[in-house]
Amino acid sequence: MVFRFHSLGLVVCLVALLFAAGAGSAQKPDRTTRVAPKNIILMIGDGMGPAQLKAYRMYQDNPAQRGIEPLRLDRHLVGTLATDPKLTEAQAESLAHYQVTDSAASATAYSTGQRTFNGAIAVDIEQQPLPTILEQAKRRGMKVGLVATSQIVHATPAAFIAHVPSRRQYNEIADAFVDNQFKQQPLVDVFLGGGWQYFAREDRNLVAELKAHGYTVIRTQQELANAGAKVAGLFADVALAAAKDRPATQPSLATMTTAAIERLEQNNGFFLMVEGSQIDWSAHANDIAGVVQEMDDFHQAVEVALDFAAKEGNTLVIVTADHETGGLSIGRKIGDDSPYAYHVQPLRNLQHSMRWYLEHALAEKSLQTFLQHTGIELTEPETKQWQSLQQTPDKKQLWTLLLAIMDRVTFTGWTTNGHTGVDVNLYAFGLGAERLRGYHDNDFIGKQIQLWLNEAQQ
Amino acid sequence: MVFRFHSLGLVVCLVALLFAAGAGSAQKPDRTTRVAPKNIILMIGDGMGPAQLKAYRMYQDNPAQRGIEPLRLDRHLVGTLATDPKLTEAQAESLAHYQVTDSAASATAYSTGQRTFNGAIAVDIEQQPLPTILEQAKRRGMKVGLVATSQIVHATPAAFIAHVPSRRQYNEIADAFVDNQFKQQPLVDVFLGGGWQYFAREDRNLVAELKAHGYTVIRTQQELANAGAKVAGLFADVALAAAKDRPATQPSLATMTTAAIERLEQNNGFFLMVEGSQIDWSAHANDIAGVVQEMDDFHQAVEVALDFAAKEGNTLVIVTADHETGGLSIGRKIGDDSPYAYHVQPLRNLQHSMRWYLEHALAEKSLQTFLQHTGIELTEPETKQWQSLQQTPDKKQLWTLLLAIMDRVTFTGWTTNGHTGVDVNLYAFGLGAERLRGYHDNDFIGKQIQLWLNEAQQ
Repeated sequence: MVFRFHSLGLVVCLVALLFAAGAGSAQKPDRTTRVAPKNIILMIGDGMGPAQLKAYRMYQDNPAQRGIEPLRLDRHLVGTLATDPKLTEAQAESLAHYQVTDSAASATAYSTGQRTFNGAIAVDIEQQPLPTILEQAKRRGMKVGLVATSQIVHATPAAFIAHVPSRRQYNEIADAFVDNQFKQQPLVDVFLGGGWQYFAREDRNLVAELKAHGYTVIRTQQELANAGAKVAGLFADVALAAAKDRPATQPSLATMTTAAIERLEQNNGFFLMVEGSQIDWSAHANDIAGVVQEMDDFHQAVEVALDFAAKEGNTLVIVTADHETGGLSIGRKIGDDSPYAYHVQPLRNLQHSMRWYLEHALAEKSLQTFLQHTGIELTEPETKQWQSLQQTPDKKQLWTLLLAIMDRVTFTGWTTNGHTGVDVNLYAFGLGAERLRGYHDNDFIGKQIQLWLNEAQQ
Repeated sequence: MVFRFHSLGLVVCLVALLFAAGAGSAQKPDRTTRVAPKNIILMIGDGMGPAQLKAYRMYQDNPAQRGIEPLRLDRHLVGTLATDPKLTEAQAESLAHYQVTDSAASATAYSTGQRTFNGAIAVDIEQQPLPTILEQAKRRGMKVGLVATSQIVHATPAAFIAHVPSRRQYNEIADAFVDNQFKQQPLVDVFLGGGWQYFAREDRNLVAELKAHGYTVIRTQQELANAGAKVAGLFADVALAAAKDRPATQPSLATMTTAAIERLEQNNGFFLMVEGSQIDWSAHANDIAGVVQEMDDFHQAVEVALDFAAKEGNTLVIVTADHETGGLSIGRKIGDDSPYAYHVQPLRNLQHSMRWYLEHALAEKSLQTFLQHTGIELTEPETKQWQSLQQTPDKKQLWTLLLAIMDRVTFTGWTTNGHTGVDVNLYAFGLGAERLRGYHDNDFIGKQIQLWLNEAQQ
């Protein structure tokens, strides 16, 4: 009796100690641990630097409640990533400076665990193909998916399926969605985004080829519900519309994420990459309204993934960015007497994208809708500029004026129309999240996922 | 024998489980845990946003080695902090916007665990005094110290010892270094920085009063070695010189940190706050050279604290910032054909602060020293500006020109001469570091230190 009690105690202790050992070792990548997540959802906010996250946190804040509520994502911060690309030998010799990454090099670090040169799609600095985690996942029996609000052949999704030295080789990248195969079948079970024109080409009809391989190929959100297990959703010729202007035929990123997960879930697990592509584009344009609107589209997709992972139990959700775009800052002081302020209400008041207001103002020769929606009062110089543009319409100048007005009223600052080198935030939730803690180079993410996929194979 | 073996097994298991439980609960603040660090060193890089850290990481990188080496600090990243101040009732009613914090409000969040309004020194939004962690530490028998490269009465150190509604009340803040007492003795055992003029005043001679309380009051680095256990080091009338121009009489932040730790170490433990004050000032001036030079002074002090904590074993080092300053970004694109680049070599080449080169150029009517040291070649417009300034010297215009040149050659961008609202990084090393993981509001740091100090008392 005493013996049995003690034996039971020992078993309980051993189980508890195994659990404890797992928790303790979780903070460093560890090749010996056998606990790999069954499903991995990697979500990339393109251009989502620390200031983009802060702007969105204030945009979504409930002003009736004091203080600024954290984003759902904020609960899962685990670290930061450096995003610097690798220079080619020639660059390393000739350049005296460091490079700021582009989306292709950073996506390749995530998709292959290797840093490479700017523009490269899953090839190394000798332009040799690098195996991707999507390919590895497929080989071990997982289903795989790619979702984006850009054309699906754009740099970030491309780096998971294609191997080309230039991100601009859109046709070659589209070809890879058919030609990159495992067991005579194209790799990507579900891909959703834009880019119809790269698949329905005169020189090659990838749409017909995908159908021959058993894919449902669709062009509208309405067809999504009845699409089969293998689906290519190409909801626009090139990119999807901006989040706030998306027509009923084009799904939100959250809807696409839900549709992908539904089709990918299975016993052997899945790998899914989801990109909020147009945060970056808005930031390139220095359009703060676009940034928070696209962040909203992205964050709703993040919530879909977090909900799924919380319910499923063996899923890891990783959320990060490829780089910052725009040199965005919040609380630019305007003149010496300017308060230390940030004003998001005009952003919340917008009912459309800024491009919509631009087109509307040009068509109506009036800023009334824009000013009514936002509650903005123009300054005297702004009024004069607008009056001059009413007489001699100039789209580019009006665009610049509208963006400058939004920057003024919100106290937003920008330094560049390109990318910047600040570290990006890293969030993780679910099985394995602990292992990602701390500061890393971006290729650490690809390397760690490779380790997990190897473990799962053993 | 079997019985004894199992008993031993159970004991081993129980000890292991206690250990495991401690590790598992370490990630959330937890009032029940009794393990508090013996010594707490809180280090604040004023104005040290994510881009300031990245700029410094590249500045200190060894270019002969491929890739960018992490800072020693990077190993200890545990999360990020939101820095938003609290609005007064009047502000909350009248303002339609959010505020960006100043140093006083953010330092008060750290020193008291309570958010307050901009400008406030350890008082709440009703201007009532808030107890500080330095006061609490002293009451429980710990030694306490404050170290800064600003005048020691400046906002950040002030928030740990004084209670006044305005950070500009320098004299009242200086008074608190004598008048804020425990057991008839001034609270702060060691304070090192600038600010002699606020202590040796006509209306009150705090220097004499401190001496009467047993302090060694010193004005030069040379006196530091022989100073007693209680020391007031006031190495400049107001602020210390810029890090790169500091005369032999003024210590580095690392030297002051070492001197403080030596005097504070004792059985009952200590609390020490160390501020890298002038990162902020360089960023207010949009002076990237000053930012990396002051970051270097700060990071060397961080290394002193980390070395001590690694050796001592029961010390917690927390490193963070109060806010970002300048809207700094790295890799500003200059023109459409500009590379995605960042160029730190001109920063590494500098032998002095930019203010030194400014004065030197004015005195010599020549930019030769600046151009020789940095290796910079002026553009045609820069040459023309300089030629015009040679003929009609204007200090402010030359300063603007020098900073613009440094921004151009390094691809640095700024949006403001004030603060911005981006989250700041949080680093922690040593006993209790695990508890600080994740994203928090800045007052979490003050609250958690209060919990530890309470635990230690029980």
